Amino acid sequence: MGEFELIRNYFAAAPCAQAGDGVALGIGDDCALLAVPAGEQLAISTDTLVTGVHFADPCDPFLLGQRSLAVAVSDLAAMGATPVAFTLALTLPAVTADWLDAYARGLNQMAQGCGVRLVGGDTTRGPLSLTMTVFGRVPAGQALTRSGAQVGDLLCVGGDLGNAAGALPLVLGQRTAPAAIAEPLLAHYWSPQPQLALGQALRGKASAALDISDGLLADCGHIAKASAVGLLVEHQKLPLSAALLAFLGENAARVAAVSGGDDYVLAFTLPPAHLPALLAEGWPIHVVGRVVAGQGVTLLDANGQDITPNIRGYQHFQETP
Amino acid sequence: MGEFELIRNYFAAAPCAQAGDGVALGIGDDCALLAVPAGEQLAISTDTLVTGVHFADPCDPFLLGQRSLAVAVSDLAAMGATPVAFTLALTLPAVTADWLDAYARGLNQMAQGCGVRLVGGDTTRGPLSLTMTVFGRVPAGQALTRSGAQVGDLLCVGGDLGNAAGALPLVLGQRTAPAAIAEPLLAHYWSPQPQLALGQALRGKASAALDISDGLLADCGHIAKASAVGLLVEHQKLPLSAALLAFLGENAARVAAVSGGDDYVLAFTLPPAHLPALLAEGWPIHVVGRVVAGQGVTLLDANGQDITPNIRGYQHFQETP
Repeated sequence: MGEFELIRNYFAAAPCAQAGDGVALGIGDDCALLAVPAGEQLAISTDTLVTGVHFADPCDPFLLGQRSLAVAVSDLAAMGATPVAFTLALTLPAVTADWLDAYARGLNQMAQGCGVRLVGGDTTRGPLSLTMTVFGRVPAGQALTRSGAQVGDLLCVGGDLGNAAGALPLVLGQRTAPAAIAEPLLAHYWSPQPQLALGQALRGKASAALDISDGLLADCGHIAKASAVGLLVEHQKLPLSAALLAFLGENAARVAAVSGGDDYVLAFTLPPAHLPALLAEGWPIHVVGRVVAGQGVTLLDANGQDITPNIRGYQHFQETP
Repeated sequence: MGEFELIRNYFAAAPCAQAGDGVALGIGDDCALLAVPAGEQLAISTDTLVTGVHFADPCDPFLLGQRSLAVAVSDLAAMGATPVAFTLALTLPAVTADWLDAYARGLNQMAQGCGVRLVGGDTTRGPLSLTMTVFGRVPAGQALTRSGAQVGDLLCVGGDLGNAAGALPLVLGQRTAPAAIAEPLLAHYWSPQPQLALGQALRGKASAALDISDGLLADCGHIAKASAVGLLVEHQKLPLSAALLAFLGENAARVAAVSGGDDYVLAFTLPPAHLPALLAEGWPIHVVGRVVAGQGVTLLDANGQDITPNIRGYQHFQETP
């Protein structure tokens, strides 16, 4: 038995690979089989992380295990889907038991937190890269897409912005910070929590949604384009964490919040009538702007002045190590 | 717009990315959405091809486009599934328009031949590798797995064996051959034809099935293990192409047929009662052995002698460039 076959057996025995709801056949055959209940559709997303592009080399394999799955599952949250399963295509330069063990622990922890099961994949020798394909189910016709935003809708986000971008200098070892600041920022970067429950709560309410991976302005641009509308973002309404404010100061924190990637917080448009009930239910919803006729995304300061051009120079926040 | 976003748009506009049966939402949102008819399950398989491991560097991008998809879709054939869709995670060292164009043409041609649509993926900079995840549908409970072989069943294959292994010296430029020999062998290697129709015809009939990717003996070992049975393979019954016989001579051709990988022909076990009707329908079924009590795979010569140990030295046929 080759070492890569050993790895396949290793993952097949992982806690996250055990059979469960919706998985009719798991790892070990030519295909996995998923059962999709009548009236539901299957949501699918694929993400690749490459060493030196999406994460530093070397990096902590436990944290990479968490982050690689969280990033992919976040796309299910953005569709309002309920996670079911995932496949992992893992390419490794060499087989190191310690590395694999730590990676699998991180992966398992995130998989169990998200309710998603490993149903297949491939393991190959080569430069380190990971491709995750995730599967969720959603009632037919109720998936949250990017294309339904309507003039008059509110633009909302599901939590603090800019934390992952703020964490980058810590991840790259370019800066240090006291634990009270560094730990929450690094946690946002390494183990983002896909907003699965919020996404499901928004089904039938939000008119458009996505998860913020490239930065608020860039991602809102995707909604504006797909929905053929304009979006106004009010800079002073962006929710910022205490850690980010303490680490960067307010000006840089606000720039990180609009331009920084990797937050994996939901951004969505919402007819105003739905807001009170959602807030009463306790969802962490922040209104940060609104949908208008037109196109593109415009950032407004507290006086309603367009300050979008001032932000353009900060695109480096979109780059990960 | 970055060059990798241009690539995403390029693939989104490809013929194989157009909407069709079973695809409720294609490329361009956080997830694709597949509709799975009531009473059916979704079959899923992931395969990674890495440059220098699974294919030579450089290699013809058109042929790589064909082969990368065929290898993945073959797993759907092995389950008796009807192809629906696929995702492509493409990691490229640099963006070269000619390369992409040729790759996409090969991909499109195979996708259209297999009836499978591109519904998503990811494009990243890095060492060349490809991860395909393919999706098919199969009536619930009718998928062909590896675990149902019964003592007394026939062991069958769906076509000539060893052609891809025979083609390897041609692929690697180590040997040449007249076109009448080289062309059919190279066609088997570069554009294997997933046996989708045969797989579907075997639903409810074959007791176990897979596609031969690692070599007949190695893959039959997977059936034997999953089904807890033994398999006898009769060496002289293996179907061999005229091109392979002419290129390698009979002895080496028979070794390639049992040990060579990459054939992507179906191997399956079949209760004898089903054979006459399937042959009458014209399916290319060759009986090459039978299922017995015990374990493992035993290769028999024309006199019924066990010659399995004689083959062990030829494992290099399982290695691709």
